[in-house]
Amino acid sequence: MNSELLTQATACKKASAELMNITTDVKNRALEAMAQSLEDNADYIMRQNAIDMDNAKAKGITGALLDRLELNEKRIKDMAVGLRQIKDLPDPIGEVLSMWKRPNGLQIGKKRVPLGVVGIIYEARPNVTVDAIGLCLKTGNAVILRGGSEAINSNKAIVDVLTAKAYEEGIPQGSIQLIRDTSREIATQMMKLNDYIDVLIPRGGAGLIKSVVENATVPVIETGVGNCHVYIDEDCDMDMALEIVTNAKVNRPGVCNAAETLLVHKAIASKFLPPIAQRLRDHGVELRGCGETAAIIPDIIPATEDDWSAEYLDLIIAIKVVDGIQDAIDHINRYGSGHSEAIVTNSYSHSREFLDKVDAATVYVNASTRFTDGFEFGFGAEIGISTQKLHARGPMGLNELTTTKYIVLGNGQIR
Amino acid sequence: MNSELLTQATACKKASAELMNITTDVKNRALEAMAQSLEDNADYIMRQNAIDMDNAKAKGITGALLDRLELNEKRIKDMAVGLRQIKDLPDPIGEVLSMWKRPNGLQIGKKRVPLGVVGIIYEARPNVTVDAIGLCLKTGNAVILRGGSEAINSNKAIVDVLTAKAYEEGIPQGSIQLIRDTSREIATQMMKLNDYIDVLIPRGGAGLIKSVVENATVPVIETGVGNCHVYIDEDCDMDMALEIVTNAKVNRPGVCNAAETLLVHKAIASKFLPPIAQRLRDHGVELRGCGETAAIIPDIIPATEDDWSAEYLDLIIAIKVVDGIQDAIDHINRYGSGHSEAIVTNSYSHSREFLDKVDAATVYVNASTRFTDGFEFGFGAEIGISTQKLHARGPMGLNELTTTKYIVLGNGQIR
Repeated sequence: MNSELLTQATACKKASAELMNITTDVKNRALEAMAQSLEDNADYIMRQNAIDMDNAKAKGITGALLDRLELNEKRIKDMAVGLRQIKDLPDPIGEVLSMWKRPNGLQIGKKRVPLGVVGIIYEARPNVTVDAIGLCLKTGNAVILRGGSEAINSNKAIVDVLTAKAYEEGIPQGSIQLIRDTSREIATQMMKLNDYIDVLIPRGGAGLIKSVVENATVPVIETGVGNCHVYIDEDCDMDMALEIVTNAKVNRPGVCNAAETLLVHKAIASKFLPPIAQRLRDHGVELRGCGETAAIIPDIIPATEDDWSAEYLDLIIAIKVVDGIQDAIDHINRYGSGHSEAIVTNSYSHSREFLDKVDAATVYVNASTRFTDGFEFGFGAEIGISTQKLHARGPMGLNELTTTKYIVLGNGQIR
Repeated sequence: MNSELLTQATACKKASAELMNITTDVKNRALEAMAQSLEDNADYIMRQNAIDMDNAKAKGITGALLDRLELNEKRIKDMAVGLRQIKDLPDPIGEVLSMWKRPNGLQIGKKRVPLGVVGIIYEARPNVTVDAIGLCLKTGNAVILRGGSEAINSNKAIVDVLTAKAYEEGIPQGSIQLIRDTSREIATQMMKLNDYIDVLIPRGGAGLIKSVVENATVPVIETGVGNCHVYIDEDCDMDMALEIVTNAKVNRPGVCNAAETLLVHKAIASKFLPPIAQRLRDHGVELRGCGETAAIIPDIIPATEDDWSAEYLDLIIAIKVVDGIQDAIDHINRYGSGHSEAIVTNSYSHSREFLDKVDAATVYVNASTRFTDGFEFGFGAEIGISTQKLHARGPMGLNELTTTKYIVLGNGQIR
């Protein structure tokens, strides 16, 4: 076991015991001071980020990866705004969700409390550092961060700037820890710190998440992979269907709630496929179709078995003609990642069937899959989107960063 | 991958899709028929159990292990009663926990749904087989059971008797699977069936649970290890304290909510320790004490560091004199397993401090730790007691065998 990691984990767990009971006032004052400090130290953070950017370019990193790494004044301002938004949200800690009395007089209450120590493993996105610290602090959780190696100088600068203010405002020393050794061994060691970390949340691509699920012994909340479908039912509003499919695919193709496969009822395929193909192509989308689709759109790229499972995160869509709603549901439950699934229909019974039978975190009738998002759901924050079934499913806000504790008030009861 | 295991897992997942939407009426009729069938086939089950008992005795198994394996008419009757109790509980599936409308008109509901496929890994206790099948069926979950090898003939008989009736009553074929190969490799393979099993619940001793936590890639709900404490505060009702400590230790020492360590405020140690030592010894309890305890009870066995972490599950108790409430809380948070912790006090502020600062699934004021139990909490059932913080914490009833799904109703919303 790496001794620095162990020192950090020990400090974090110790701080967590105190942080659990810090008042909302102290937490909010700290969040405001941290936001202010980000703005005040923007130049310093950008200088450190420039080192990361230079190193990344020297390593040949380009495109979206490089873009996500970059910090500028606007982005630092946005991070500060994010912290102030978290400050303004209600504090979920301490809420008693239910309380009842047993026949023997025992009063039992279920109370919302912090998880304790949350571990976040993520890629080279400095904004996640700020976001994770803010969300964990608001929910009374100590946090251990392990970000991507390319962002290490940016992360160090951000964490130094934030922790100085947080501790000044009464957040227990040690509550926020950044792992400065970004080697793979340290990450693997972190995933097995069951005595120190209560929950691990990986945030990033499929590879990162798979590695955490396979290596961690600490309980994990799996987030993110989205192979989402839109199914166009026989009886539907065709204009609505065109709008929803287009929006679900092209509005922001690189995010997990974007649609990857379009399923179309065979009875309307010949009527619906030509206009949707046209629209999607107008937006630069590459189409890959099944045999029946190709019979209607002859110049389409043939879809292979791999296309049904693919999370493109790009301007590509797979299209399949299905025999009916059961066929659509079977396809979704077989190939989907359990993220977001939509039906466009005018049929009451089909809407119910789809809602009941599709096994996913979020199931839509007559709306775009793009709404699967903590902010769009009204949570005011988002730590990720869970595609597993334990603890949290779908968009996770502040509540999902908490657990419960039973408090039992007696006057001498024994069994 | 073992092909029989894969066949069973595939069948189970397939059945699960249908089982998720089976009505309460069908589930309840099946539970009643299964209860009746257990009674009707008691002789057959006992004959198969006799084979297990003979094999176990030949292997030198004795005592509590052998006792848990044994089935007799009374125990089979009790299992049938258990199924009927589950039948009589309200069905949690389909409940909409909350529903709200967004400014754009989207209506978002959070609905309780089955987990899907639940894997149960347990020891040689045939009653767990019945219990797990009943609880999973009521919550619409398909179940894969892997019980201890010593109970294999009993488990086969029980599963055959139950599934025949369940399927006759409309439960989808394949919903209930018993793994008949009880080798360790098959159990390890089962723990990695992420594509087929949604949740694993280990039920048994610390060794079994540790092995599942370390080997599983399927999400696990950790249950059971209980190193529980009773802390006797300076200002308390001495008679109540004597009753609670005695009950928490001797009422059923072999279960996880029994107390293992007694903490006593130094200001009342000389007054409280002699009578409690006398009482516990009268009940045959072996006492192990810290130095300060030994100064008051001279013939006590000295406690070692290991005693503070021990889950004795036996008539043994460790005793420590503490400097005050903070010292007690620190000791509990350091050595406890996060199960059940109790304070006996007359102090309002100390009761609040204990409830807030002790990090455990269930925290008691002036009551015995023995109440941490699904039935005592009023859940009407129990699948185990979670000592982790994800998904479920404390006694788990039917609700803890469910997850949620967001259903979103729109009329053409796009982003």
